[in-house]
Amino acid sequence: MSATLGELAERFDCELRGDPALPINCVATLSSASPGAVSFLANPAYRSQLPDTNAGAVILEECFEAECPVAALVSTNPYAVYARVAQFLHPLPTVEPGIDSSASVASDAVVPDSARVCSQAVIGPGACLGEGVFIGEGSVVGANVTVGERTQLAPRVVLMRGVEIGKRCIFHSGVVVGGDGFGFARDEESWVKVPQLGGVVIGDDVEIGANSTVDRGTVENTVIEDGVKLDNLVQIAHNVRVGAHTVIAALCGISGSTTIGKRCMFGGAVVAVGHLSICDDAVFTFHSTVLQSVTESGTYSGAFPADEAKRWRRNAARFKRLHDSTRGRREADDADTDD
Amino acid sequence: MSATLGELAERFDCELRGDPALPINCVATLSSASPGAVSFLANPAYRSQLPDTNAGAVILEECFEAECPVAALVSTNPYAVYARVAQFLHPLPTVEPGIDSSASVASDAVVPDSARVCSQAVIGPGACLGEGVFIGEGSVVGANVTVGERTQLAPRVVLMRGVEIGKRCIFHSGVVVGGDGFGFARDEESWVKVPQLGGVVIGDDVEIGANSTVDRGTVENTVIEDGVKLDNLVQIAHNVRVGAHTVIAALCGISGSTTIGKRCMFGGAVVAVGHLSICDDAVFTFHSTVLQSVTESGTYSGAFPADEAKRWRRNAARFKRLHDSTRGRREADDADTDD
Amino acid sequence: MSATLGELAERFDCELRGDPALPINCVATLSSASPGAVSFLANPAYRSQLPDTNAGAVILEECFEAECPVAALVSTNPYAVYARVAQFLHPLPTVEPGIDSSASVASDAVVPDSARVCSQAVIGPGACLGEGVFIGEGSVVGANVTVGERTQLAPRVVLMRGVEIGKRCIFHSGVVVGGDGFGFARDEESWVKVPQLGGVVIGDDVEIGANSTVDRGTVENTVIEDGVKLDNLVQIAHNVRVGAHTVIAALCGISGSTTIGKRCMFGGAVVAVGHLSICDDAVFTFHSTVLQSVTESGTYSGAFPADEAKRWRRNAARFKRLHDSTRGRREADDADTDD
Repeated sequence: MSATLGELAERFDCELRGDPALPINCVATLSSASPGAVSFLANPAYRSQLPDTNAGAVILEECFEAECPVAALVSTNPYAVYARVAQFLHPLPTVEPGIDSSASVASDAVVPDSARVCSQAVIGPGACLGEGVFIGEGSVVGANVTVGERTQLAPRVVLMRGVEIGKRCIFHSGVVVGGDGFGFARDEESWVKVPQLGGVVIGDDVEIGANSTVDRGTVENTVIEDGVKLDNLVQIAHNVRVGAHTVIAALCGISGSTTIGKRCMFGGAVVAVGHLSICDDAVFTFHSTVLQSVTESGTYSGAFPADEAKRWRRNAARFKRLHDSTRGRREADDADTDD
Repeated sequence: MSATLGELAERFDCELRGDPALPINCVATLSSASPGAVSFLANPAYRSQLPDTNAGAVILEECFEAECPVAALVSTNPYAVYARVAQFLHPLPTVEPGIDSSASVASDAVVPDSARVCSQAVIGPGACLGEGVFIGEGSVVGANVTVGERTQLAPRVVLMRGVEIGKRCIFHSGVVVGGDGFGFARDEESWVKVPQLGGVVIGDDVEIGANSTVDRGTVENTVIEDGVKLDNLVQIAHNVRVGAHTVIAALCGISGSTTIGKRCMFGGAVVAVGHLSICDDAVFTFHSTVLQSVTESGTYSGAFPADEAKRWRRNAARFKRLHDSTRGRREADDADTDD
Repeated sequence: MSATLGELAERFDCELRGDPALPINCVATLSSASPGAVSFLANPAYRSQLPDTNAGAVILEECFEAECPVAALVSTNPYAVYARVAQFLHPLPTVEPGIDSSASVASDAVVPDSARVCSQAVIGPGACLGEGVFIGEGSVVGANVTVGERTQLAPRVVLMRGVEIGKRCIFHSGVVVGGDGFGFARDEESWVKVPQLGGVVIGDDVEIGANSTVDRGTVENTVIEDGVKLDNLVQIAHNVRVGAHTVIAALCGISGSTTIGKRCMFGGAVVAVGHLSICDDAVFTFHSTVLQSVTESGTYSGAFPADEAKRWRRNAARFKRLHDSTRGRREADDADTDD
């Protein structure tokens, strides 16, 4: 796809600085762009690359315009404009609708003519796909699953029986939605399985990364609201609710029955215990451990930066005696108020 | 399935308080139950919901009976009774035995008439399935694998060559059993692969969550004993032994050659280094790091709760100098005995 | 496969102590070996097992020769010799080339006669497999993917469109290469998807463990250089570069745009934030959190050993006030220089 700079400015509501007739045919980074490309400056860390860019044009905020050696598309949100321009210039390959002859489709499944079911995929009895749905190679859509219009499953996704998926979702390869939650009742030394009778309800515009897992609820449903984005290898346990537009990076785990508000952000490898309530707009930085409910929006942290190994070992050894050593000194001061 | 309250009391060995003729047809939570449902009180956190429940009956301990506004099934272990009642009232759909025409089954594989092999599944040469085994859509049972009776594989499970699986196991989608362990010998700057010649032996009544991985042993076997429960995205490395009835929550990782005792409990995201020995009945709380062998049963912890970000950064900065700062003071006291 | 001890000494360049005619037919551990087996001593922790071994011969360093009760193959790198001997004595089953009738192969895909495509596998349009490539059951090779000669995909691997894989790689089950990176631009309260237009380029002799994920780049490529070894459940985000011969153990996560040098070693569950630069030969011990770039080779740590729960809670409570408590004392000394 290609366009003139003027067309892009108009379509994506930017102020244009430069020649509206300039032809643009791709996006690129500041450092690698050629004159036919449009680039962007959103992260100030890359500001130093701006003066030397060979891009045809750069999408940026007004404050950086003076430093831009080429044409510019000025916006208050250059990264979002970049995302839309990139979608426009690099559309996904169009998909031929139809059911591959190697797929297994139950006779009572609903597969509209506009949907695509790729090779080796399985559509179970009573499943219902919306218009324009894409089911990748080897994906399995279980019995009575519903998939909203234009949702895309990459190869080898599994949707277990009865889960409900919204519109325009994207699930990457290896995602499993609706496996049993982890519920067992202790009985003497062994465990009795607690049947996982709930389902999973996923809203519209949800994206889930490769090999992530979302378990079905114990009695009621596990719920992922509209616009949530989960990265790869994320675990969402049974009975969790993830609020709209929350983003959760790779290797995070949310334990059972925890409720997360809207627009929260979880950095990579953040883990949260169960039965918590996290308010809207809470941010957890990389590798934090969430052990308590959060009632105030804001940023929360909990990871120690890796340190030179010998120093780390010494400090960790001191930490192991932190309470006792402090206690000694404080008691000497008649000031112990702990525990 | 439905039953009278009296039938449930008798079948599951509870004391009945209330009308034995009360019809019960489902389980539900205290807060959402309707009169046809039986609910339960096992976690005292939900005690406040008991007086207002609309359940037909509640499974609970004797000490809560006075607060129960409806009929009760009294038991010393209400959660286990609940689990069994739920299994009884909500049986899994019955499975038609047979081999789907799209499955690939080796001519010398043993598949009893009572087993079910779903669409797109693969059963390799020499594999042997027990009575009533269920092989989900797209699952792959490798050469010479044995699967005990009534074990169920969800869609897209992989059992690599020669692994041995017990009876009544449940493996969720994406589980991989018998991939190569991570073994390489350094040779100058590159690595030589150490062949992983051992197998995997899994006992009876083991459940493994979605996308978890259990590697084959280097020379001898990786072993998961009877009744072990693994959650989603768990890694069990080569040569590990997990003792009977141990439970391991999501995102845990057990490194190579570590041996875990019986009835241990690993909270979510606990990771253990290799070559450890963990005794029976050890409990590791959420996100702990197990760096040493454990010889005494008990509870072990190792995670810091996420804190307000600014305070966390200050504390972490202090920690980085903990040894030096303490050392200084202690030396001044002629009291340094560390390292 | 079997050989005499003399043949092994010659083929693998060891000094022989003992009878060159001794027949050897397998490898084994020191403690379980029988007289037809060759064992090895590489980890000094197993030295105590040497005097009692029943192995026919032991591969070891010269310094341990005197303690060896049986024949020996003396080498300066016994573990690497062991790895090669094990490969030699226990060759993988030979693979019949050919395309299984249940596989789906695009008409314009290149599949040489020497390649094997197993049952239910999918080879997309324009894909190109090298000589001797093995595609396991149910694996999906996307459009325009190239796979170098003798690379092996276990069952259920997914290579998304256009990724480039080198020679002699081994990808275990559930690996996903080329899923979209996690890129979204905030726009008011929701998120706009940033198209992931780059690819993934993987060098020769790379091994990737079960259910690991490698995302495609945003604009340029994600790159894994020659000889890299990734364990199970590892996440490699978009735009990452992993230098040659680096090894990364299970449950590690490398965030977007981080660059890792050559011959680095990541212990299990190490996580690194994005946009870092890690130099060659850096070592991160188990469960470290990498929050800063590393410019000097060496060993870095960041995990606290799990401790008895009560002591841990007390120490963690002190930690939460570490800055304030230290600050108080230091201010009293007119010595506060922090923040």
